[in-house]
Amino acid sequence: MYNPLLLPEVREMLDSGDDAGLIEFCTALHPGVVAEVIEGLSNEDIWRVLSHCDVNSRVQIFTFFDLPKQEDLVTTTDRKRVSALLEEMAPDDRVDLLERLDPKHVDLLLPLIAQAERSDIRKLLSYPENSAGSIMTTEYASLPQEITVEESLRRLRRIAPDRETIYYVYVLDDQRHLHGFVSLRQLILAKPEAIVADIMDHDVISVNVSDDQEDVASMLGRYDLLAIPVVDDHNCLVGIITHDDVIDVIQEEATEDAHRAGAVEPLEDSYLSTPILTITWKRGIWLLFLFTVAQGISVVVDSYKEISEHVEWMGTFIALVIATGGNAGSQSAALVIRTLALGEAGPSDWLRIAAREAAMGLMFAVVLSTLGFFPAWGLQGWDAAIIVSATVAIMVMWGSMIGAMLPIVFKKIGMDPALISNPLVAAIVDFTGILVYYEFAQFWLTPVVETLPH
Amino acid sequence: MYNPLLLPEVREMLDSGDDAGLIEFCTALHPGVVAEVIEGLSNEDIWRVLSHCDVNSRVQIFTFFDLPKQEDLVTTTDRKRVSALLEEMAPDDRVDLLERLDPKHVDLLLPLIAQAERSDIRKLLSYPENSAGSIMTTEYASLPQEITVEESLRRLRRIAPDRETIYYVYVLDDQRHLHGFVSLRQLILAKPEAIVADIMDHDVISVNVSDDQEDVASMLGRYDLLAIPVVDDHNCLVGIITHDDVIDVIQEEATEDAHRAGAVEPLEDSYLSTPILTITWKRGIWLLFLFTVAQGISVVVDSYKEISEHVEWMGTFIALVIATGGNAGSQSAALVIRTLALGEAGPSDWLRIAAREAAMGLMFAVVLSTLGFFPAWGLQGWDAAIIVSATVAIMVMWGSMIGAMLPIVFKKIGMDPALISNPLVAAIVDFTGILVYYEFAQFWLTPVVETLPH
Repeated sequence: MYNPLLLPEVREMLDSGDDAGLIEFCTALHPGVVAEVIEGLSNEDIWRVLSHCDVNSRVQIFTFFDLPKQEDLVTTTDRKRVSALLEEMAPDDRVDLLERLDPKHVDLLLPLIAQAERSDIRKLLSYPENSAGSIMTTEYASLPQEITVEESLRRLRRIAPDRETIYYVYVLDDQRHLHGFVSLRQLILAKPEAIVADIMDHDVISVNVSDDQEDVASMLGRYDLLAIPVVDDHNCLVGIITHDDVIDVIQEEATEDAHRAGAVEPLEDSYLSTPILTITWKRGIWLLFLFTVAQGISVVVDSYKEISEHVEWMGTFIALVIATGGNAGSQSAALVIRTLALGEAGPSDWLRIAAREAAMGLMFAVVLSTLGFFPAWGLQGWDAAIIVSATVAIMVMWGSMIGAMLPIVFKKIGMDPALISNPLVAAIVDFTGILVYYEFAQFWLTPVVETLPH
Repeated sequence: MYNPLLLPEVREMLDSGDDAGLIEFCTALHPGVVAEVIEGLSNEDIWRVLSHCDVNSRVQIFTFFDLPKQEDLVTTTDRKRVSALLEEMAPDDRVDLLERLDPKHVDLLLPLIAQAERSDIRKLLSYPENSAGSIMTTEYASLPQEITVEESLRRLRRIAPDRETIYYVYVLDDQRHLHGFVSLRQLILAKPEAIVADIMDHDVISVNVSDDQEDVASMLGRYDLLAIPVVDDHNCLVGIITHDDVIDVIQEEATEDAHRAGAVEPLEDSYLSTPILTITWKRGIWLLFLFTVAQGISVVVDSYKEISEHVEWMGTFIALVIATGGNAGSQSAALVIRTLALGEAGPSDWLRIAAREAAMGLMFAVVLSTLGFFPAWGLQGWDAAIIVSATVAIMVMWGSMIGAMLPIVFKKIGMDPALISNPLVAAIVDFTGILVYYEFAQFWLTPVVETLPH
């Protein structure tokens, strides 16, 4: 996203050294808007603009650049400037950036960062990718149980500037065990002399630090929370994940699934900012795999040479019989993968899903094999009509079933159901479809073939 | 999502008439958890449990049921109970439910609802589906410009119970024009005697009531907001949309796109709660369309009868030449549709995208046509090898290009790019692929065909 509207004015202010104008520009607009505008400048000019605002706004504006841009900016300026920025960044944003940098570059930067921040970075970097730990921030607001509401508000005022949010506050003991939760709304509405322990919610919805980010996102979404606390195995609070990070996770996971549905290994950055050789590779491996399956189909067709030689129209309906099964399979896979991703159904629902697919497959089989019968009859006569419509009927039922069941099997054995892409289902169904088509033809036509001269 | 863990205990409490236990159950747990547990009860028992909590908790728990369940609950109990519930529901949730009900049923309910709420309902119902107006709530917190921070906090305390959020507060004049924005965090940190107009942000990011919900969601996500204000054409505040509703919109849009990618007309409810005939219809229309395209392919193949009669191996490679182009097309479509949905690229980027697809298509063409050459040569000799590898090369480039450009064209003319499903791309590419295959074969083999006896 890039917003060129104000760019000429910013350039003008830079050229004329209008410091007051630049300060005003950096502070009056939302930091996300500032980032969109100055994205059009050279890296050097971006740093010049950023030098006009206080460190807080600078960090905020910087965080609104996408990660490839952030990486580009920090690798083309001096390390002191970068370390000052990193020290002030939110822990989760900082780790996202450091994970992208060359480890050698990180090793040069870390010594310039204050000790406390450094160990926070090391800790967060140690959590596995896509875990709750890898997306959480350690800058949460917490309170002890026994203080009053009035004292709580005083403490929140003091810590607010460094906290990602003060709207959700977690109630901890000395060992940081999570005992309760209180919202700022509850605090504001409570009597000043009330005790936190008496007004807090005891049933806190939390996630474990090793939980998958997708499960965290669906939990925050399901309960309409602003943030969700992350605890370790001893129920000690180690971080929080806020709604804005969850939105990013949801978009990321939806992008991954959309790419997989098209048989592309998911890209990490946007389509336009990913190097072309990376995309070629991430498509190429799947394309090659599917090409090999298609070659296998050719070999199968070739092995039925005898029948093809006698029955010239066999080739005419190949595309029809395999595409229809593949399409029904794509549909089932798309529906079931999405319903699994949203947590609306799980592997234990397999029988219900199978029953639905069987019913739908049967309806499609009746309609499509009838519709396929007459054109085949018109083009090539009775034998063709019977073979084509029988194959279509079988394939559409088989495609629906396999497209629905494969994602469930993958989920059950702990793999990502989204690996069942539409082209993969189509390839599997195509392969079996060809076998069904020729075997049925061989069965039906055997008397014909045998009476024909060799 | 349905949580059967506590269900036996709830049943036990219902059977033994343990009112105190039920009251405790309704209030101690998160309302979302309560909803998950009692979803396993009969409608009558659900209402019995709900009658044990105060109206506020009742509404909250009820709102956590999914919409088909809410509909089921309100159409199987008496209207007085329903109207009391509707009066207290958040305006956006209420409208979501009413939109699903039979209009006759709504007409019977509305007279039982207080006048003020009724006109709010009529207003919200009037906004077009998928617009900002249709998902906003009218229960926002606002303040005038000239009061002090101390007075603001006092007022917020008073209105908090009825407001969806008090963390974001909008600053309005007497005509409700939107002048500024102040967060509760800013108010808490400001001096009590400061004036709201002096501490508020003047650059408020807002959306118009007629904006598409997808654009609203991407804007809230982009700027990491908790809520976004909705204004009319005169910049008067008419509602807000909060982060939790945006998460729902993002999931809904991702589901729509996933269904479309598999050539299914998007389902409105979950896969398992949609009636089987509805899904059959939503799949059937696409399946039928694609079946017709596949029939067209059969007609085309049939029209090249002459060449098929002389060159028996033509059928052997049909699946290979068409599937490969279709797969490359599916990949491009998946990548481009997603990048358009995220707003990372727009129709104006078409040339850059076309250049990338041309480069990738060329690389795939070189590799796959080489890999296709040798098996075809081994199976059927030189002619087959040349025709197959030339067709694969052309189709993989053509597939990549058409898969990338069609969504852009759709976006440009104001249609949903996601209408370009993977099977649709595959069907289009299949159709052209067959033409290329036979035309090229005819061109290459003409001398052969002509020397063969008719």
